[in-house]
Amino acid sequence: MRIGAIEAGGTKFVCGIGNEEGIIEDRIHFPTEQPESTMANVINYFKDKGALSIGIGTFGPIDIDRTSPTYGYVTTTPKPGWAGFDFIGTLRKSFDVPFGWDTDVNAAALGEAAWGAAKGLDSCVYYTIGTGIGVGIYADGKLVHGLVHPEGGHILTRRHPDDGFEGLCPYHGDCLEGMAAGPALEARWKVKGSELPENHPAWAMEAFYIAQAVTNIILTVSPKKVILGGGVMKQKQLFPMIREEVRRNLNGYVNNGAILSRMDSYIVPPALGDNAGLSGGLALGLEALRRS
Amino acid sequence: MRIGAIEAGGTKFVCGIGNEEGIIEDRIHFPTEQPESTMANVINYFKDKGALSIGIGTFGPIDIDRTSPTYGYVTTTPKPGWAGFDFIGTLRKSFDVPFGWDTDVNAAALGEAAWGAAKGLDSCVYYTIGTGIGVGIYADGKLVHGLVHPEGGHILTRRHPDDGFEGLCPYHGDCLEGMAAGPALEARWKVKGSELPENHPAWAMEAFYIAQAVTNIILTVSPKKVILGGGVMKQKQLFPMIREEVRRNLNGYVNNGAILSRMDSYIVPPALGDNAGLSGGLALGLEALRRS
Repeated sequence: MRIGAIEAGGTKFVCGIGNEEGIIEDRIHFPTEQPESTMANVINYFKDKGALSIGIGTFGPIDIDRTSPTYGYVTTTPKPGWAGFDFIGTLRKSFDVPFGWDTDVNAAALGEAAWGAAKGLDSCVYYTIGTGIGVGIYADGKLVHGLVHPEGGHILTRRHPDDGFEGLCPYHGDCLEGMAAGPALEARWKVKGSELPENHPAWAMEAFYIAQAVTNIILTVSPKKVILGGGVMKQKQLFPMIREEVRRNLNGYVNNGAILSRMDSYIVPPALGDNAGLSGGLALGLEALRRS
Repeated sequence: MRIGAIEAGGTKFVCGIGNEEGIIEDRIHFPTEQPESTMANVINYFKDKGALSIGIGTFGPIDIDRTSPTYGYVTTTPKPGWAGFDFIGTLRKSFDVPFGWDTDVNAAALGEAAWGAAKGLDSCVYYTIGTGIGVGIYADGKLVHGLVHPEGGHILTRRHPDDGFEGLCPYHGDCLEGMAAGPALEARWKVKGSELPENHPAWAMEAFYIAQAVTNIILTVSPKKVILGGGVMKQKQLFPMIREEVRRNLNGYVNNGAILSRMDSYIVPPALGDNAGLSGGLALGLEALRRS
C-alpha cells in the first residue's frame, strides 16, 4: 500500500511515501516559500508515486471543519501568501485521492499512537515545544477537534516566583508559549537555549512552566501517555525535572499507577525521532483511506 | 422505550425512568447512605419498571476502564463505605440489562448534548461549580476518557492579585477547586455565597478563577459550547463577568465567530435545569442500549 504524507512546516516542507506499517519508503524536503511554488514542488513529487491517499499535517491555524466551505484551507497565519490558501483544493486538482488533514501536532500525536511512543494506546497527548508551543490530543482513538483545533500552547500558567520576564506572546504576553517557547528562553537569558549549560537555572524554570501544562492536561483529558517533542525538548535533562515537578503538582491526587509509580515511561520523548512529522502525515493518509 | 437513569450524588440519589426523547416519566430520590441500604432502594425502585438499560452518572472517582477488573467500581472516595464498592456488579445481580457508567459531570455533558444546551452539537464541556468543581468533556461525539476520567476541577490557576486566601484543596491548596468552589467562597468571605449581594467583589474574583478554567479549556479542547452548572452558578450575575474575562484572556486569539461575537450563546447555563443529572443518566443508559 502506498500512502502519501506531507509535513508542512513553517520553514520546511517534507513529502514522503510510506506504507500501512508506518515505514517511510521515500522522502524529500524543500523550503516553505509562497504557496504557488511550494505546492508545485509537492505536486511534482507525488505525480508519479501512485499514492492511494495523502495525509497532511500542517502549520496553522487551519480549517478542519468538514462542513465548512473553507475546509482544507490555511486560515489566519501571518506567513506571507498562506492566509486563506486552499491547501487541499490545490492538491485535489492533481490527485483524485482521499486527503487527511490536520495540524502538525495532531498528526504527530496520531503518528506516535500508530507506531511510536503511544503505540497500542487509545489516548496520548503530544506537545511540541520549539519556536512555538503546540499540542495535539488523541483521546479514545480519535484526534480531538471542536470549534477549531487545540491551541493549548497559549494556556495561562502561573508565573515562576523568580521570573520577571514579561513574556513574548503578541496576544497574551505571559501565556505558556510567551514564557516557555524557544524564543522566550532566548529573550529571557540573552543566549540561545542550545548554548545554555545543562545545569543552568533556565532549565528548572523551563521545567516549571512545561510541568504546569502537563499537569493541567493530565487533569483535563487524562492521557495514557504524554509525549514532549520539539527543539527545546532536545535538552534531555528537562525530562526528569518535568516529571518531578508534575509529581509535586499532582501530589498524589490522580490515583493511577502510570502516574504514581511509572512516571519515567509516562512522560516521554517522541519515539519516531526525525520521522515523527512525516509519520503523522502518513497516519492521517491511512486514516483518510480507511474512511473513504 | 423505557430507559433507567441514576444520578448518584454525594448526598442524594435520584432514580428515574425516561425515554429515547429525553422525557423523564417517573422519578424518585432518597439520601445517599451506606451502599447496602442505598442500593436496596435503587433495586427496589427499578425492580418492576421494565427498564431496557440503566445509565449511571455518579460521584467519583470511579473506574471507567472497560478492560479493568474493577470496571464499574467507585474507587478512592472518602465517603464511608463507598471506596472500592462494586456499583454495577451489585445492580447486575438484579438486572440483566446493559449498563451505562460515567461520572456525574460526564453524564451531564452527554445529557446537555443530547437534549439540552448543546443539542445538535458534537462537542461541549460541562463544568459543575458547587461543593467541588468537576468537568465533563464531550468531543467529536464521545465523552473523553483516558487513564481515568477528567479531574479538571483541580487545574492550577493564577492567583487573583487581590486574593490572599490560601485555598482549601487538601491536595493542592490553591488549585481551581481550592480557590473557587462553594466552600472556598464561604471560607474566604466568612459568609455563604448565597448570602453575598450580587455586587459584592467576591463575584468578580470568582469570575476571574472560573474564566481561567474556561479560557484554558477553550484553548485545549475547543468545545462548541461551554456549559456552567452547579450551585455557585445559580448566581446568574457571574455569566456576563465570566464571558468578559474569557474574552479578555483570549484577546482575539481564537478566531471563531462563536467566541468573538456570540459569547452570550457560547458560555451558558445548563438547559435541562433540575433534570440535568438524571437526563445525563438517561443519555448514558440509551448509549449503553445502542452499544449492546
